[in-house]
Amino acid sequence: MPKGRLEAFSDGVLAILITIMVLDLRIPRGASDLAALRAVLSPFVAYVLGFLYIGIYWNNHHHLFQASHSVNGKILWANLHLLFWLSLIPAVTAWMGQQPFRLGPAVIYGLVLFMSGVTYIILQRSLVKHHGKDSRLQRAMGSDAKGKLSIALYTLAIALAFVNPRIPYVLYLAVALIWLIPDPRIERSLEKGNSAVA
Amino acid sequence: MPKGRLEAFSDGVLAILITIMVLDLRIPRGASDLAALRAVLSPFVAYVLGFLYIGIYWNNHHHLFQASHSVNGKILWANLHLLFWLSLIPAVTAWMGQQPFRLGPAVIYGLVLFMSGVTYIILQRSLVKHHGKDSRLQRAMGSDAKGKLSIALYTLAIALAFVNPRIPYVLYLAVALIWLIPDPRIERSLEKGNSAVA
Amino acid sequence: MPKGRLEAFSDGVLAILITIMVLDLRIPRGASDLAALRAVLSPFVAYVLGFLYIGIYWNNHHHLFQASHSVNGKILWANLHLLFWLSLIPAVTAWMGQQPFRLGPAVIYGLVLFMSGVTYIILQRSLVKHHGKDSRLQRAMGSDAKGKLSIALYTLAIALAFVNPRIPYVLYLAVALIWLIPDPRIERSLEKGNSAVA
Amino acid sequence: MPKGRLEAFSDGVLAILITIMVLDLRIPRGASDLAALRAVLSPFVAYVLGFLYIGIYWNNHHHLFQASHSVNGKILWANLHLLFWLSLIPAVTAWMGQQPFRLGPAVIYGLVLFMSGVTYIILQRSLVKHHGKDSRLQRAMGSDAKGKLSIALYTLAIALAFVNPRIPYVLYLAVALIWLIPDPRIERSLEKGNSAVA
Repeated sequence: MPKGRLEAFSDGVLAILITIMVLDLRIPRGASDLAALRAVLSPFVAYVLGFLYIGIYWNNHHHLFQASHSVNGKILWANLHLLFWLSLIPAVTAWMGQQPFRLGPAVIYGLVLFMSGVTYIILQRSLVKHHGKDSRLQRAMGSDAKGKLSIALYTLAIALAFVNPRIPYVLYLAVALIWLIPDPRIERSLEKGNSAVA
Repeated sequence: MPKGRLEAFSDGVLAILITIMVLDLRIPRGASDLAALRAVLSPFVAYVLGFLYIGIYWNNHHHLFQASHSVNGKILWANLHLLFWLSLIPAVTAWMGQQPFRLGPAVIYGLVLFMSGVTYIILQRSLVKHHGKDSRLQRAMGSDAKGKLSIALYTLAIALAFVNPRIPYVLYLAVALIWLIPDPRIERSLEKGNSAVA
Repeated sequence: MPKGRLEAFSDGVLAILITIMVLDLRIPRGASDLAALRAVLSPFVAYVLGFLYIGIYWNNHHHLFQASHSVNGKILWANLHLLFWLSLIPAVTAWMGQQPFRLGPAVIYGLVLFMSGVTYIILQRSLVKHHGKDSRLQRAMGSDAKGKLSIALYTLAIALAFVNPRIPYVLYLAVALIWLIPDPRIERSLEKGNSAVA
Repeated sequence: MPKGRLEAFSDGVLAILITIMVLDLRIPRGASDLAALRAVLSPFVAYVLGFLYIGIYWNNHHHLFQASHSVNGKILWANLHLLFWLSLIPAVTAWMGQQPFRLGPAVIYGLVLFMSGVTYIILQRSLVKHHGKDSRLQRAMGSDAKGKLSIALYTLAIALAFVNPRIPYVLYLAVALIWLIPDPRIERSLEKGNSAVA
């Protein structure tokens, strides 16, 4: 099966997720001076983090399917499974924006990121299985140290939330920063592939 | 007419439908611990079911148009008719999430699924008619036992709701599970077609 | 300029417009039986009419660009102008759903439809001008009797709203029914074009 | 990397941004005559300005990528950075619609436009760098006087807001009008390029 519609549907869902979070950035009715912005500071920071995460997933999804050339039924569902967990990011972002340093949002935010990370790895594996162990995709992936590290850090963050609910945010931001750099493995491999063709 | 824009528009509508349901997953303002999640348990379960159903329709729609190569005016409207009924899923999901085991939502949810199933069959038939009785699409469809069974189960569910409004949910979940497995008929047929070409 | 992104952007906007109207179909919190549906009857009818109109515009837009092969800067803005007026349909639909038979919504709904009709004709003309008077598009359009009739009927409907705000709805529905049939002019012309090529 | 998915994702985000602003055009419940429209006059004017700005950015983005043929990881993030600032337009538009002539919204609206302008220039530069100094894109851009002028006018508008919060709106409208005309530089260059090929 060609990959076109899976990419188009995922782009649509990710574009909506990244945008509906902004619906929670409501400046209180009646406020008219710059001081009113203090009321949206915490939702704004939560929005930035959510935007970063969905941006990162879109970016990695883009790279991943760039290195793929077709899909099957299992991959469609693995992708929907990933989108399901990502679709919870706006809801947990809204909660986090209201109650940033409390146990509930700190833990649930971590759980949603953890499940997103796990389902991304499942999607990656189903793509590698479909394309074969010797495929460019497999070579490009390598050991996927970044993916595994992220999941370990989410787990640590959830555990430390019970010590102090402020600690997890340091780790959530750290993971985002690790991923902000686009995955050079695939890009390099793609360039090699292209130059080999050219 | 080429099928590209029908697919793109449907992907857009389905991506929005699957995502706006999440807007009802609002953790009550002021809640800050994990116990607050109990308040969203029932909307969350409703969200999962709605996500599954829209995911299934996207999947089947994807398979269906994969086996098609062009469309006509009737197919455009048959597709819009299907999208109309699917567009009601977020509204009935929100109601079901609030009042899960009451007659109203149990019946209306079934009715929307019933009409979605019927309009999907109408869309399928208009595609088969357009491509011809001997087309790969027709062969791939076969007798469409799954589609007919689903409609029978929705009807049964609506009837049993008047006995006890908890029964329908077992059937709604059962139909979802029947469809979760991607349609092997079309996929097999597509593979055959492709290998015949190769 | 190729027409691809104009089509993709318009599909996105129309998909969102047709879907966000459903956000107004909220069954009152606490309602649990079928009688509760009476509260959403009027918004539901308004939703059906709005869905029909946006479906019709998508359909016609699809046919129009099917017969086109490229765009220029003026066409991009003519298209945005059309999308602007169509984007007001959800807002006037919501008002109409609350106060169906009052002067305000009856007139404003007509005004938005009138402006949508006018901007559609502007878009059509800018496309014909770009493709040339002898193009397939121009031949397919003919005198555009349907488009002109619709605008006349919207004007009549607005005038009659001041007599009785129930009259316009008959006309709004009548225009929708006129358009429900996909434009056979372009479809026929496209088929001829294709068979000429084949 | 091909540019297709970057364009599709940006189209999705911009289509949503241009549409969700309309969610703030809510006629007060219970209002039924034309006088009720006065309550939405100020949000409507804010909506028109927001629609213009997002329309302009879509238009320029369209022209910019028309002249490009591939992207890299840095361009993906430069594009996300631009989309981040544009995604704040609905939130500041809502605030401006409620409190049009107060310091807070006047300044913040300008700040969001300023950052959108800056990130657009960053995106442009990363594209030019990727395509080379001698590329058609670079020649088409020229000195980018319009982009630099806009940023100067936004800065001026923010400064003058502290004198009188009504002044900035004149400048915001002026910048929109400057851009309303599609960029003839790229269009001309594209035509030349095409005719050179033909």
